[in-house]
Parts: sequence; structure tokens; C-alpha cells
Amino acid sequence: MTGRGPRGERGEQADKIVAAARRSFATRGYAATSLRSVAREAGVDPGLVTYYFRTKTGLLEEVMQPPEAFGATVAAAAEQPLERRGHALVQAALNLWEDPASAEILRSIILTAAQEPAALHRLRQLFSERVLAVVSHSLPDTERNLRASLISTQIVGMVMNRYIWQIGTVATLPAPAVTDLIAPTIQHYLTDPLPPSLSDDSRSPG
Amino acid sequence: MTGRGPRGERGEQADKIVAAARRSFATRGYAATSLRSVAREAGVDPGLVTYYFRTKTGLLEEVMQPPEAFGATVAAAAEQPLERRGHALVQAALNLWEDPASAEILRSIILTAAQEPAALHRLRQLFSERVLAVVSHSLPDTERNLRASLISTQIVGMVMNRYIWQIGTVATLPAPAVTDLIAPTIQHYLTDPLPPSLSDDSRSPG
Repeated sequence: MTGRGPRGERGEQADKIVAAARRSFATRGYAATSLRSVAREAGVDPGLVTYYFRTKTGLLEEVMQPPEAFGATVAAAAEQPLERRGHALVQAALNLWEDPASAEILRSIILTAAQEPAALHRLRQLFSERVLAVVSHSLPDTERNLRASLISTQIVGMVMNRYIWQIGTVATLPAPAVTDLIAPTIQHYLTDPLPPSLSDDSRSPG
Repeated sequence: MTGRGPRGERGEQADKIVAAARRSFATRGYAATSLRSVAREAGVDPGLVTYYFRTKTGLLEEVMQPPEAFGATVAAAAEQPLERRGHALVQAALNLWEDPASAEILRSIILTAAQEPAALHRLRQLFSERVLAVVSHSLPDTERNLRASLISTQIVGMVMNRYIWQIGTVATLPAPAVTDLIAPTIQHYLTDPLPPSLSDDSRSPG
């Protein structure tokens, strides 16, 4: 939270600045982006960037905010009965990424977090507050962190191959086919027994 | 291939330059890295960078070369009988990433490809020449691209969560536990029947 209130209350100029920062962090990298270059790309006075976001860190914080639909979309899928939740979670992820507006935000979050420690820290927070606690809803406490983490590996890998790298068959198939292929894996991580080696005492708190 | 011959024949200076480029591309991004800044970090004369690699693209090509052990490690796993190959492939991936020297190279390949189109192009080549053709060895031609792509989603997601982001339980578990958790998914993608919706005519050539 930047303390500037919800997105709707802010000016159009601020939104333009955030969009420009998002593009620049994702394509040129965080280090190569200056407040001045963001202002130039947004077509606004550099003073306005400082006025709205104070520092590059302030701007980063804003860029790392998930899309508006994110929380509700993931939560709705996580509220599905456990036996349908695998399918619902894959569909939720694909819905967010097939929508160009939220895909651009998510893409920027991933690419910025890969190179900038402050962004990675924010991604970890996002993961634990908005994903971990949600997807494993109603699972036993001793298993939910591990199961949510396994789900994360499969969803993130799907996203990297299909949307970020656009590599391999998974990148070109229609979304419903991808859902049919990936959902059984998520369901497996949600509800199948864990391997015997993963008894409580060998598992870290994560 | 840069046409400068295998790594061993090249000078120690060239190796220092590549290592510095690798770090800089991965942490500051490709765009923010100059031949001059690489020379400074490597502690060599800028002329030497130009002598060995000519351009930034030449340096990029070098940075995108997989670790020496990569081809042999993946191929050995892919030669395993089909019923053990899931386990072998996860173990191969973890072995490459648990070794700091090859992990640094792979990490740089992933982070550089995320932001630089020329690097992404190289990653796609690497994927199709060194991974796709190999992991699905001995599978029917009509299924191997799809199955290799699904395997890629799970391996890449495991790598992103465990090694790049270091996020969630999968990042903190010992490698053998991760193998036990992920191998069944890879085996599923290798040998279980594909969903009915994925008949030949609905599948793109990938």
C-alpha cells in the first residue's frame, strides 16, 4: 500500500506513470529504469512522478500490486469443493493470464521480481498472503503449506512456458485444453496422499 | 556457437569476462549492461571484451550456452527406461541446480531470457534442440512434443519456486524429498493417457 488510496481515486496521470514503469521494469529491468525515463515514457513532467510516488521504491511498490481481479478470482476458485478445486484453480490462473490487462500486470510482477530483491520480497509477501493461505483452504494445517507450494510450482511453470517464454506445445493450445492437461496435477497436489518420506518431522515449516 | 572454439582453448581472461557478463545480465538486466561495464567488473581492458566477443550480442550468445554438464545429464536421464524416467529427469534437473557452478549459468540464462528477445530466441532453440527431442525419447511422434512441453512446465515451475524465487516449502526441502514429490507428476506426463479432448486434430504441432 502506498497510502495514496485506492486506484480509482488517483488521477489518470498516475495510472499512466504506473503503466510506463511496468513496461520499463519488465523490458529494460528495474536497474536501468529511472524516474526521469518513466516520466518521459508516460509523457508527464518528472516532478509529477515524484509527487505521486516519491521514490523509485514507491513506484516499485505500486507495480508489484496484483491486478484488481486477482484476489477475488483466486479466492473464488479456492472456495470450490476440494474435488473440483484443481480444475477451478487452473481455470482461474488461465483467466487472469488470458486477459491482456491483468496479464500485463502479472508479467511485470514476475519479470521485475526475477531481478530486483525488493520486488522479490514483495512477491514473497503476495504469495504468502494471497496464495498460500487461500488455495489450500480447508486442508489440514500440517499439509497446506507443502500442498500450496507444489501447486505453485505447476501453475508458475505453466505461466512461464505459455505466457512469458511462449515455448512448446502448452503455449499454443487453447486454454480449455491446457486446463484439461494441468488440472489433474493440481488435484493430485491438493488431495492425493503425500509420499511416505514427507512425514511431519522431515518437513520444514516453509 | 561463437566460433572461438571450446571453452578450454580460450584464455582465463575470456572466462572472467563471460562470468562478469552472466552476473550483470542476471542482476542488472541485459539493457543496463555495457561492454565497458562488463570489462570493469571482470577487471580487464575493454578492448579485450571486443577482441573476444566483438559485440554485446556475441557476449549474450556465450552467456546463453548451457553448462557443460547439461546435455549429458539430461540425455542420461532420458535414456532411462520409460517407467523410471520421471524420477531420473527430476533428479537430473535438481543435480544441475544444486551444483553452484551450473546453477549460476542456468540462472543467468533464465533471467536474461525473461527480458531480452534475442536471449529468449536462444532459449527456445536450446529447448527444442536439447530438451524437447531428448526427454520424450522413444515416445510416439504424435505425443512427444506435448508430453515434453508438459514436463517442461513442471520442471521450470519447480526451478522458479525453489531456486530463482526461493519461495514456499519446495524451496526449503532437501532435494530427495522434492524428487519424491515431483517425480510422479513427470511420470504422469510421460506415460499416462492424454485427456480425450487432446485428440490429434485439436493439438497444434507445437
